[in-house]
Amino acid sequence: MGSVIDGVLVTPLKEIENPKGNILHIMKKGDPGYVEFGEVYFSTIHNGLIKAWKRHSRMTLNLVCPVGAIRFVLYDDRPNSITSNVFQEVVLARGKNYARLTIPPGIWMGFTGISEEESLLLNFADIQHDPVEQENVPVEKSHIIFDWKDKLEL
Amino acid sequence: MGSVIDGVLVTPLKEIENPKGNILHIMKKGDPGYVEFGEVYFSTIHNGLIKAWKRHSRMTLNLVCPVGAIRFVLYDDRPNSITSNVFQEVVLARGKNYARLTIPPGIWMGFTGISEEESLLLNFADIQHDPVEQENVPVEKSHIIFDWKDKLEL
Repeated sequence: MGSVIDGVLVTPLKEIENPKGNILHIMKKGDPGYVEFGEVYFSTIHNGLIKAWKRHSRMTLNLVCPVGAIRFVLYDDRPNSITSNVFQEVVLARGKNYARLTIPPGIWMGFTGISEEESLLLNFADIQHDPVEQENVPVEKSHIIFDWKDKLEL
Repeated sequence: MGSVIDGVLVTPLKEIENPKGNILHIMKKGDPGYVEFGEVYFSTIHNGLIKAWKRHSRMTLNLVCPVGAIRFVLYDDRPNSITSNVFQEVVLARGKNYARLTIPPGIWMGFTGISEEESLLLNFADIQHDPVEQENVPVEKSHIIFDWKDKLEL
């Protein structure tokens, strides 16, 4: 899956089979990536569309994809990071790579839907949504040079 | 939606429109129904199948349905409850009734998938999964007299 940015975690999660319907783990208090509970919410993303670039100054994101498939691109431009200027790509998809992606504050991130259906993303966050701690820079106005058309396959 | 059991909450939630993909609220710290954070997980349920009856002695459930549609039946047999012997039915479905169903400890509950596709259920719980505090009694062995074939329409 390419480089790994310092502080980013990809934690495989269990899906427990049941003939009536399965159980899928998300997060327990104290799990890897758990900081505190502030807010949990869903985002959806349509196939081929890109939500990028976003950076949080305080929020740690814990991301799970129970429907569809989502490709994430992360970029570290923290000046004192041991992985400064490193990109990391991760695809989350139930059944293929059902995992929790933990992104600490200070990392640029973007994502795109890569399944035909709408993909569903859950974010378990340590603080509540606060526009003041969130930067949003459109792809075409960003300093980050990245070609979203080079598709990473799972 | 019929009777309302003491302590049960149905809290409408916002879905915020976005052309790339919407945002759906689930739970913020301090929201109605919030007690504490212990664990959050998904269950799925297939169309027409029933997961019932279940009762927790300590866990408060906070349930959200982002995919499909789920019919819940709740039954209160707490001897000192002001709604003792009351049934309550709730249907959760994104787009139709996107809401959070809060079920306090001591209430019997069951649910069934009522959309053709598999339905997805999120439970935001105040404690971690613990089989000791959970009773599971199959429908056919329960003292609860309820005809699941009488379908509640949303």
